Amino acid sequence: MARPSGRRPGESGTREAIRAAAARLFSEQGYDRTSLRAVAAAAGVDPKLVAHYFGTKQGLFFAVVELPFDPAVAVPAIFAGPREEIGERLARFFVGVVENPEGRRRVTGLVRAAASEPEAARLVRALIGREVIGRIVAELDVDDAGLRASLVGSQLVGLAMARYIVGIEPLASQPPDAVVAAIAPNLQRYLTGPLDLP
Amino acid sequence: MARPSGRRPGESGTREAIRAAAARLFSEQGYDRTSLRAVAAAAGVDPKLVAHYFGTKQGLFFAVVELPFDPAVAVPAIFAGPREEIGERLARFFVGVVENPEGRRRVTGLVRAAASEPEAARLVRALIGREVIGRIVAELDVDDAGLRASLVGSQLVGLAMARYIVGIEPLASQPPDAVVAAIAPNLQRYLTGPLDLP
Repeated sequence: MARPSGRRPGESGTREAIRAAAARLFSEQGYDRTSLRAVAAAAGVDPKLVAHYFGTKQGLFFAVVELPFDPAVAVPAIFAGPREEIGERLARFFVGVVENPEGRRRVTGLVRAAASEPEAARLVRALIGREVIGRIVAELDVDDAGLRASLVGSQLVGLAMARYIVGIEPLASQPPDAVVAAIAPNLQRYLTGPLDLP
Repeated sequence: MARPSGRRPGESGTREAIRAAAARLFSEQGYDRTSLRAVAAAAGVDPKLVAHYFGTKQGLFFAVVELPFDPAVAVPAIFAGPREEIGERLARFFVGVVENPEGRRRVTGLVRAAASEPEAARLVRALIGREVIGRIVAELDVDDAGLRASLVGSQLVGLAMARYIVGIEPLASQPPDAVVAAIAPNLQRYLTGPLDLP
């Protein structure tokens, strides 16, 4: 009963129908309450097809968000290396993504949308809290992991706003290396430093 | 020839006409190229009336932005005190403004608008680069003052987005004192610490 995995007529239409149904359900019901089965039903396809095209619910989520990188590759790469330099690796990774034109288009599009659309805000919350930054922080074995992830998120969202969307000078025209150097120690403190909570 | 300074019939209409003309000119031409004389002409009033109601061009600018605080009071207050605690004073001031419902409405409205409207982005650039944060940094007598102001701006805009607009947890539900404690050292580094530029 296994389907051949080569291209078939209608494949891209089916894929897109699944993606569109997932985008709608994720935004209406949130990530946790959306099942692959419900997405399949909404798209009018067999649940096996959803798994075939997107693997897991997380894979489907990333296809909806259209992240300009693969978290399964990026997270281990950011995590690999000296613990006291993880802020710099994260800064370099983020700035690298947003310096790329296609990456910039997607990141600024998502941040812009999150400023006014609840469903985009929900995606950003999931990316920061659970899918990308949250996963890095979880592996650091630190107190207040959730708060650290959201503080890192505040700086990265703020950098996207200040440098790439609002265009605050001279930050907007600094070379990428200077931006990495400027923000890396602040990210490092949020990730592994003392938070000095009262 | 001096006018009485008490209320006259039509005062609020005249004031609002001047404010509306200023909002249009600031957004079309930018702050630097907008003169009080041009605002008066656009509003169809005597230039002396503009000065009477708003004082300076900066006063008119703040009336347009509807800042929820008076920078002429706030900036000296933030600056007053030990230099090594200015990050904490700025964090406490900003969080205090945004914890107030009216302050939150205006700040989040401005940040939301700046994400998509060029004229709002221009206002935010002026507030960070010149009118509020830029003025604090200028008094600190540090290298890279402009870059420091925009980095502080990136963190404050990011905090507004993360805590108050996108609602990233657990940052969104932390008590204000915890938020101040968490971000103050990062603001302090941007204001007075080494930027480690390459």
